[in-house]
Amino acid sequence: MGKAKSGYYIGFDLGGTKMRALVVDEEFRIVASAKRKAVAGVDTAAEGLDRMRACVDEALEEATVSPKDLRGIGFGLPGALDLKQGVILRLFNVGWENVPVKKKFETIYGAPVAIDNDVNAGAYGEYRFGAGRGHPYMVGIFVGTGIGGGLIIDGKIHQGVGGAVGEIGHLLYDRLGPRCGCGARGCYETYASRLAVASQAAVQAYLGKAPALAKKAGYDVEKYRSGTLAWAIENGDAAVEEIVRESARIVGHLACDLALVLCPSMIVLGGGMVEAMPKIYLEECKAALKAHPVIATMKGVAVSAVKLGDDAVPLGAAAIAADKVRNEK
Amino acid sequence: MGKAKSGYYIGFDLGGTKMRALVVDEEFRIVASAKRKAVAGVDTAAEGLDRMRACVDEALEEATVSPKDLRGIGFGLPGALDLKQGVILRLFNVGWENVPVKKKFETIYGAPVAIDNDVNAGAYGEYRFGAGRGHPYMVGIFVGTGIGGGLIIDGKIHQGVGGAVGEIGHLLYDRLGPRCGCGARGCYETYASRLAVASQAAVQAYLGKAPALAKKAGYDVEKYRSGTLAWAIENGDAAVEEIVRESARIVGHLACDLALVLCPSMIVLGGGMVEAMPKIYLEECKAALKAHPVIATMKGVAVSAVKLGDDAVPLGAAAIAADKVRNEK
Repeated sequence: MGKAKSGYYIGFDLGGTKMRALVVDEEFRIVASAKRKAVAGVDTAAEGLDRMRACVDEALEEATVSPKDLRGIGFGLPGALDLKQGVILRLFNVGWENVPVKKKFETIYGAPVAIDNDVNAGAYGEYRFGAGRGHPYMVGIFVGTGIGGGLIIDGKIHQGVGGAVGEIGHLLYDRLGPRCGCGARGCYETYASRLAVASQAAVQAYLGKAPALAKKAGYDVEKYRSGTLAWAIENGDAAVEEIVRESARIVGHLACDLALVLCPSMIVLGGGMVEAMPKIYLEECKAALKAHPVIATMKGVAVSAVKLGDDAVPLGAAAIAADKVRNEK
Repeated sequence: MGKAKSGYYIGFDLGGTKMRALVVDEEFRIVASAKRKAVAGVDTAAEGLDRMRACVDEALEEATVSPKDLRGIGFGLPGALDLKQGVILRLFNVGWENVPVKKKFETIYGAPVAIDNDVNAGAYGEYRFGAGRGHPYMVGIFVGTGIGGGLIIDGKIHQGVGGAVGEIGHLLYDRLGPRCGCGARGCYETYASRLAVASQAAVQAYLGKAPALAKKAGYDVEKYRSGTLAWAIENGDAAVEEIVRESARIVGHLACDLALVLCPSMIVLGGGMVEAMPKIYLEECKAALKAHPVIATMKGVAVSAVKLGDDAVPLGAAAIAADKVRNEK
């Protein structure tokens, strides 16, 4: 490869429990990575940005790549964002406002910075390099503490006019249902997220119907991580399996809604719950799509679990940065 | 205008009760129009195509435009379509299959033909020339006998990977609801379409709670056209108004679902029910969007009724033909 073609990108994931930086080459092969604890508990945005910088520096050092060989840096970020300005408008879990990510990192490294929300970056990563490869009309559904989505339309991340994006967890599932955290009634998220499953499983545990779960984690929904629920099922808690399976059926309904609106060729399922229990989610989601008479008239919608794990967000972010560099040339 | 710039397009709407051809100039100003009865009752596809041709010929004659000055012909068509081949795969109400619209009209007029489904053509017409002007992220919701939709994303008609499109009437509204015509359970369409409203209004009429409607149309849901329902409300049938208003509230829920997925800046409402009773549908739909806490965090979604009436589909179809000609240059 000639000198003119060589160059590297940083892909960065600012997650809820950890942050992670990848150095990738122009073919998006991972050259090095570094991680740090997340910024929860850090007092100021300036300290948070410093920790992110240290993480990037470590990855560059590990890769023996000089900042002058960086073509671009992409960030997958939580919170409310201004994509154009490259600013985190509000980072909810720590309360920071107007964090100038783009300005800070462009100044330090002299390379263009692109940001997007973490769900979009993850969906784009799966589209470019993972389960959605070759599917320019793809829907990503991520089932974790909440339910979020990322849409790929004509090979690009769908942003709409901006503001809230990917709020698919708040589509209506049951008009008579309980209040969601968002304030509306009967959102899919109130029925099928990890928190919804955990709260139902806690009742079963308390009633003595989920002994493995009760022994492992008591009745505390905070301790019911996705892996804990998977472990309880493996250890014989049929009641927990039925609750998870119902969550998966409901995610199947959501997949149908999205297929009806968007007519994609691929639905990629991810998030903690799916990664811990992929078989249940894939089975129920495929069954729901297959059973829907209108979707049966479509050209066929495949369903897959994510393939990239923790690399989806930073790889997607790196690709977003590369697209931006290419478009601005 | 120089000779090189002059030229005309045909926009054609093959509707359920009538067909209509417009001749427009390159600025999409309507130069002439012609109409004929729809093809319901016509025996063969060949006869149907001949009637469509006669309609086009009449419009051209009226406009004193020669076929050699046609730059393109766009069709808004019902049924299952193959957009690339320009073929109606199946026209459900008459049972025809594989109707070669593109081949037929390209042969006759020597101008390129583009086809799309009528709902997409209508949504595109409203985006380009009507209520959605200036809103490249726009959702069209059409409430008639059923409920259909057309999505404008980044200024283009969203097609997905093809097959069924715009099937937004079959999103889930009530998982315990009655069977829809499609075979699934609790689709929006089973609650909010004209047929849903008519069936509920017939019960009220039969029970003596909708005397104006009963006097005008008996208890026969087939006679309950959108205009009939509007007339009954104007003539004091409060029970009918409440049923229509509930339909509008439910369309409001659907508008919320679509706003959450797509983050558009404009939702355009159309179809027979909305055109007959725009105030009720606009009021309830705006109220639903305003009340949704997640949508409140978005940049703002406006709601408007369609503005082009019967011209939306043929004008949109003409614009689709013009886009095709431009893209192929």
